Amino acid sequence: LTAPPSPSENFDGARLRLQELAAEGRLEDAWDVLDDLAPSDVADLLRDLHPSDVADVVEALESDEERVALMQALPAELASEALAEMDEGEDPGDLLAAMDPTVGAQLLQELEYDDAVDLVAELEPDEQAKILAALPVEEAGEIRGLLRYDEESAGRIMNTSLVSIEGELTAGEAIAEVRRKGQEVEDFYTVFVVDRERHLMGTVSLHDLILADPRHPVTDLIEPPLASVLPSEDQEEVGRLMSRYNMVSIPVVNESGVLLGRITFDDVLDVLEAEQTEDILLLAGTSDEEDLGGDWHEAVRARLPWLLVNLLTAAAASSMVILFHDAVDAIWFLAFIMPMVAGLGGNSGTQSLAVTVRRIALSPGPVGRRLGTLWKEGLVGLVNGMAVGLLAAGAAMVAVHYLALNPRLPLVVLLAFWWNIGLASFNGAMIPTVLHRLGVDPAVASSIFVTALTDMTGFFLLLWLASALLL
Amino acid sequence: LTAPPSPSENFDGARLRLQELAAEGRLEDAWDVLDDLAPSDVADLLRDLHPSDVADVVEALESDEERVALMQALPAELASEALAEMDEGEDPGDLLAAMDPTVGAQLLQELEYDDAVDLVAELEPDEQAKILAALPVEEAGEIRGLLRYDEESAGRIMNTSLVSIEGELTAGEAIAEVRRKGQEVEDFYTVFVVDRERHLMGTVSLHDLILADPRHPVTDLIEPPLASVLPSEDQEEVGRLMSRYNMVSIPVVNESGVLLGRITFDDVLDVLEAEQTEDILLLAGTSDEEDLGGDWHEAVRARLPWLLVNLLTAAAASSMVILFHDAVDAIWFLAFIMPMVAGLGGNSGTQSLAVTVRRIALSPGPVGRRLGTLWKEGLVGLVNGMAVGLLAAGAAMVAVHYLALNPRLPLVVLLAFWWNIGLASFNGAMIPTVLHRLGVDPAVASSIFVTALTDMTGFFLLLWLASALLL
Repeated sequence: LTAPPSPSENFDGARLRLQELAAEGRLEDAWDVLDDLAPSDVADLLRDLHPSDVADVVEALESDEERVALMQALPAELASEALAEMDEGEDPGDLLAAMDPTVGAQLLQELEYDDAVDLVAELEPDEQAKILAALPVEEAGEIRGLLRYDEESAGRIMNTSLVSIEGELTAGEAIAEVRRKGQEVEDFYTVFVVDRERHLMGTVSLHDLILADPRHPVTDLIEPPLASVLPSEDQEEVGRLMSRYNMVSIPVVNESGVLLGRITFDDVLDVLEAEQTEDILLLAGTSDEEDLGGDWHEAVRARLPWLLVNLLTAAAASSMVILFHDAVDAIWFLAFIMPMVAGLGGNSGTQSLAVTVRRIALSPGPVGRRLGTLWKEGLVGLVNGMAVGLLAAGAAMVAVHYLALNPRLPLVVLLAFWWNIGLASFNGAMIPTVLHRLGVDPAVASSIFVTALTDMTGFFLLLWLASALLL
Repeated sequence: LTAPPSPSENFDGARLRLQELAAEGRLEDAWDVLDDLAPSDVADLLRDLHPSDVADVVEALESDEERVALMQALPAELASEALAEMDEGEDPGDLLAAMDPTVGAQLLQELEYDDAVDLVAELEPDEQAKILAALPVEEAGEIRGLLRYDEESAGRIMNTSLVSIEGELTAGEAIAEVRRKGQEVEDFYTVFVVDRERHLMGTVSLHDLILADPRHPVTDLIEPPLASVLPSEDQEEVGRLMSRYNMVSIPVVNESGVLLGRITFDDVLDVLEAEQTEDILLLAGTSDEEDLGGDWHEAVRARLPWLLVNLLTAAAASSMVILFHDAVDAIWFLAFIMPMVAGLGGNSGTQSLAVTVRRIALSPGPVGRRLGTLWKEGLVGLVNGMAVGLLAAGAAMVAVHYLALNPRLPLVVLLAFWWNIGLASFNGAMIPTVLHRLGVDPAVASSIFVTALTDMTGFFLLLWLASALLL
């Protein structure tokens, strides 16, 4: 008989198991391990984890009461960062609102302003007022100021704490200055050089500062900023600029060039992930607002409106059948070919839609040069359409032979496939290009509209050709 | 009468215009400005631009001869970096191959190894051999070694030049060591700490090193690496880890923990962009290999095979019409409803497909917990299907009243929409989940397969219900 494990063995075992789960990316199962432990032991174990990992463990708890209790048992710095790293679908704002405003305010104070603003923005107005009232006046004012920027703007994701120096120093003096000013600033990679009125003059990277001879003047190390953005700039454009110029951080300046803040690569990684989700959801014909981890009723709310739109567009496309119902009535075989002509067109349209949307996302330049790509897409469609049409017409010839159908059927099949696939490819490129020109997100073109248009043209072409050539 | 502008006025005007075009992201129009200038003036003007901007100017030239001539007129460092920043669709490999191997090798020597390998990998084997022969033995060996890693692996995108120190130094000594070792290393943000056998012990960020008291021992600043990857790791997982833990660079180690290289945030930004393009193209039912800027025949090669696959899947779906052709023959009105049932199902399936693919991409954990989301997607589909079905049945009741159709038609419409939308939503989640489980990219599920399956179930449900209830 072995003795039951002592509490400390339990604890060490749990620590090992937790490390395994973290390495496997399976921390949502952490409570299988933690459930038997005393709350203080749980807090002790989580103390060694990265805030992103702690966030996973918190998310695995169902009730806000349990989440709040755990958060309060953790050191404020870790708890606050875990809160900032929580998945948006898990409503970190609700968790913050469920806490005592004093505790919530204490967590916010541990965070950088951009993360704090992100959380406060999730709260209802009265909850915002309560928690801002519990903050020191200066910090509450700073957060209120940042809340004024639009949700997906540079101002909303910028961090106002940064290290800036004035030029005219040696590298050694600059390092001493950075050491003095940087103690309160989290992760920074670039020192911003400003004049007396805080106009941005340029940047010095930390590695250049370290590599330079300490007696060397800093002015020689200053690089003009590769790019800077206004606080009103769209976050997607911020990501594009930083990715294009490989910038680890980008300065945010106002219209007169005064330095307001910085946006770092990690913010941009989050932005790219979010924008990618948005694009894929829009293209799939659903709302880009849906939380991936949300409840079924959130999903219904996001998707049903688009399905109802699609009911109308599908009815419009199908109305071609009513228009040509004589042909359908006379030749039921058309009902077999019809969905194929429409489906292949839909595929061709979706292909050129996807290529065009990505092309615009990666280099949203002026529209002039894009016209060339419209003709390219049309040409691609005509070539592919001819190939598919010939194959389908070949199959139709076999059918004609064995089923004694109208010998002109293969010609109808060929032309319908050919023209519809060509037209679909052109439309799939044209619609997002026009939307982009009008200032609308091109991904809104989405499968719904391209597919409905393609269904309509497909039904029309097939049934019109059949009426003309077969009846 | 004003005198024609002097050459220097031309030059200054061109410089201004070029800066404007760069700010507007319209450098593809640069040759409108540059065409009148002497080649040496062009090179002078481009010297002030970022390599990414120079790449745009190079890409705007049509012929490889012109591109080679321009590259050779530029300083080797700028030319090499512009080559590395060129869009993959513009075939920088072809440009490199068109150069004299000695010149090409000279450009490669200016680059970091990861960028050099990227370019060499684009060459044909005989071109590779030529250019490697023109490189110094050591560098050719290094590139050959890196070429052995898989194309989308960590080993392929890692940079082998980095700054590492051994522990047991004070912060001041460490800075001196970094200054000594870092001169040849491009942009670095982290110092890696290794033991005598180059096993990775941890990392020290440059800002911690600068902020520390110079007499302070470095051991206190060392952080265990938040994550490290093997060179065989998929680049997408590298991006996920760096984004999760906000890492500016991630160490690459071999099985025994020896430090091999580092991957920095800018590589990962490129990876995320590329993976995003791949996912969107796959989901749209086309090849993820298509170059967005490629020729029409490249596009045909990428898309036609998928259209031909779709011809088969569409025929399989449409075969339901043959199975139930009595019903279609008797009631042509079914041909009007059929595409709508299939289309709405397709939309519902694509919605849950997109949500599921993104969910897997953002947290590719174990499949167990995913089963819950399958039921959620099925439920969402049944709720949405009921809503759409009721609306469609209402419209069908009006049609029945005015057109004197079979009074059971609304019931058939309700059930067909309801069940097909529910089934589609479930399938849209189930197919990518199963693919992921099998180790296949879930985006391959794509609209083609989900749509074909949904068409088939839609046609079947409607026509079977019609046969049973209306005939």
